[in-house]
Amino acid sequence: MMKKIMAINAGSSSLKFQLFEMPEEKVVTKGLVERIGMKDSIFTITVNGEKIKQVLDIKDHEQAVNMMLEEMKKHGIINDINDLDGTGHRVVHGGELFPTSALVTDEVEKQIESLSDLAPLHNPANLMGIRAFRKMLPNIPHVAVFDTSFHQTMPEESYLYSLPYQYYKDFGIRKYGFHGTSHKYVSERAAELLERPIEQLRVISCHIGNGASIAAIDGGKSVDTSMGFTPLAGVTMGTRSGNLDPALIPYIMEKTGKTAEEVLDVLNKESGLLGISGTSSDLRDIEQGAQEGDERATLALEVFASRIHKYMGSYATRMHGLDAIIFTAGVGENSDVVRAKVLEGLEFMGVYWDPRLNTGLRGEEAFINYPHSPVKVMVIPTDEEVMIARDVMEFGHLEA
Amino acid sequence: MMKKIMAINAGSSSLKFQLFEMPEEKVVTKGLVERIGMKDSIFTITVNGEKIKQVLDIKDHEQAVNMMLEEMKKHGIINDINDLDGTGHRVVHGGELFPTSALVTDEVEKQIESLSDLAPLHNPANLMGIRAFRKMLPNIPHVAVFDTSFHQTMPEESYLYSLPYQYYKDFGIRKYGFHGTSHKYVSERAAELLERPIEQLRVISCHIGNGASIAAIDGGKSVDTSMGFTPLAGVTMGTRSGNLDPALIPYIMEKTGKTAEEVLDVLNKESGLLGISGTSSDLRDIEQGAQEGDERATLALEVFASRIHKYMGSYATRMHGLDAIIFTAGVGENSDVVRAKVLEGLEFMGVYWDPRLNTGLRGEEAFINYPHSPVKVMVIPTDEEVMIARDVMEFGHLEA
Repeated sequence: MMKKIMAINAGSSSLKFQLFEMPEEKVVTKGLVERIGMKDSIFTITVNGEKIKQVLDIKDHEQAVNMMLEEMKKHGIINDINDLDGTGHRVVHGGELFPTSALVTDEVEKQIESLSDLAPLHNPANLMGIRAFRKMLPNIPHVAVFDTSFHQTMPEESYLYSLPYQYYKDFGIRKYGFHGTSHKYVSERAAELLERPIEQLRVISCHIGNGASIAAIDGGKSVDTSMGFTPLAGVTMGTRSGNLDPALIPYIMEKTGKTAEEVLDVLNKESGLLGISGTSSDLRDIEQGAQEGDERATLALEVFASRIHKYMGSYATRMHGLDAIIFTAGVGENSDVVRAKVLEGLEFMGVYWDPRLNTGLRGEEAFINYPHSPVKVMVIPTDEEVMIARDVMEFGHLEA
Repeated sequence: MMKKIMAINAGSSSLKFQLFEMPEEKVVTKGLVERIGMKDSIFTITVNGEKIKQVLDIKDHEQAVNMMLEEMKKHGIINDINDLDGTGHRVVHGGELFPTSALVTDEVEKQIESLSDLAPLHNPANLMGIRAFRKMLPNIPHVAVFDTSFHQTMPEESYLYSLPYQYYKDFGIRKYGFHGTSHKYVSERAAELLERPIEQLRVISCHIGNGASIAAIDGGKSVDTSMGFTPLAGVTMGTRSGNLDPALIPYIMEKTGKTAEEVLDVLNKESGLLGISGTSSDLRDIEQGAQEGDERATLALEVFASRIHKYMGSYATRMHGLDAIIFTAGVGENSDVVRAKVLEGLEFMGVYWDPRLNTGLRGEEAFINYPHSPVKVMVIPTDEEVMIARDVMEFGHLEA
């Protein structure tokens, strides 16, 4: 029987939702609550393709969930809140406790809370969403889907930093990686499109949005990824620095008089494309600036692309060769300029791509390699929500 | 006419020297002064292949230089201190001021001093050596040879961090790279051995010693390198961490109560092979431990090799292909185990190497690729001293 599954992404003052009919994976409605706990909260829901927006005060996540359910009833999307069969929740950090998604119990809630130290901005917010739904709908399964789970297959030599080993044992300091749900979705989709078993594929997945991470996926399993202990590491991002010489932190502290936390704030919020260009963290602005001859925008674009470019060879080496490259997320799906720079000169490792297929391609599933290319290159729009809905079916033990 | 040129590497309490006859590049003598300024300093000089050692108190670099010259006279290596035609000095940091070696003037001394902020442990010590020699031998040329100069050809997108641009302008924060003299020597030597113009070669140079750095050298010019603003960055080293998620520094500070400087000290002195293994920073010990089944030693070895391994693809990508890989310095010249791990699975990019040529090869110049391999793989013992002597001839305007 068809199941109605809700996929949720809760932030500290926001709640994104998307309702699926499973197993058809049909999106029935989706929406967003913003500015929760502030004045003039914004509630948006899409009904029959039309966006309906209301501005009102929503004091907490519970009220947001309540309103969402009421609005869905009002618009005839559900008859009753008991029509829902399960919910799935994006949780940023699963540490080493969650190598897969998990049916939420009181114990699981506690474990997610215990990992807040590793993701102080995200896990508590994600939990607020989970708690609001569990309270409202105590009799259906709620499933936590972690950004980190997919990367738990990384071997020790990938995830261990070259630090005193005790730091790993005592403080959980290791590479976790993020965007796991997205990397998993696009790599599985790539196998479908290639009509080959995923077990036989070596894939580099480039999730490039405002945050960005690259993953090496060997036989369907993540074996390395560019983000690290936190989502700050790896490639250049909208406002994040990516990898740095660690000696720079004390040096910047000394030069600017900032504390370590303040420097970290600069690295997270004032660096990346924004830091180099001095004008914008949005790649579209950067591309436009570069086109108009702005030197700093051009530089930001070159740095941004070159960092990703080098991961192509790095991760191909990691897997002793390569079968496919995937681009996904905002920039990956929409920027032919970045894709072209990332793919430049990769012929030596079997990547032959067709500029005519790349140019102008936006947000569509497509191959952009020449037919004879040993390594296939794909653009695949990501869909984290459908992965969450699938995991609700599996880990909520729902049968369709 | 033959010239007698002295190559010097001065540390804060040490002074290494090597005397050349140029342009023949013949080593006449070499030696080392240790524990300068401490009790029981040690003076060592090699005369006719025999090491002569003395223990006595040497109070400063001037006295060390004086003793060195006197001992050379005593052993008939020179008749008079005026037999010396020039000296060359390793200087760690040349910042953006020195894209090449430089004839030392008072102005150059001041510039080297002004860069001490970037290399507080090294530049002042290097300067002590320069000053002692200039005082003793005011009428011959003294040339400064910088570890950073060779990498000054890196393009902006390689050397710029994704930080607020003002940090580069105001504080000189960028990637400088080190081991330049070594990377330059081995890449030039590789071109000779390959009998090809260096302008046509794309080379990855692996300088792997207790410190380690990888360089991408395109047409004889460094286009990227693994060390950064300081020698802490890049691959795993004996006691240095290499690259880390920068967010780890505030996290380690919070967890351990250490200051930023103290954490930096851990990253420089208690990390790398030593940190992971818990037993030694010396790769020979680590290899032996791994062979004897020590799990942590095995892990240290795997992490160490895997970090270098990934640079092979990264830098091949950077240059859109590859013609040669070079191994040099202590580990690079002597560890067939590390070389084998670094070269594993690179066939997809044209690297075909012969385990029989690699195994047991120590400290000798040799090819270890199969004859048909498009990418050549070489072991080349480095020789920074001869590069210094060559630069004394060139920048000291000495004609042979």
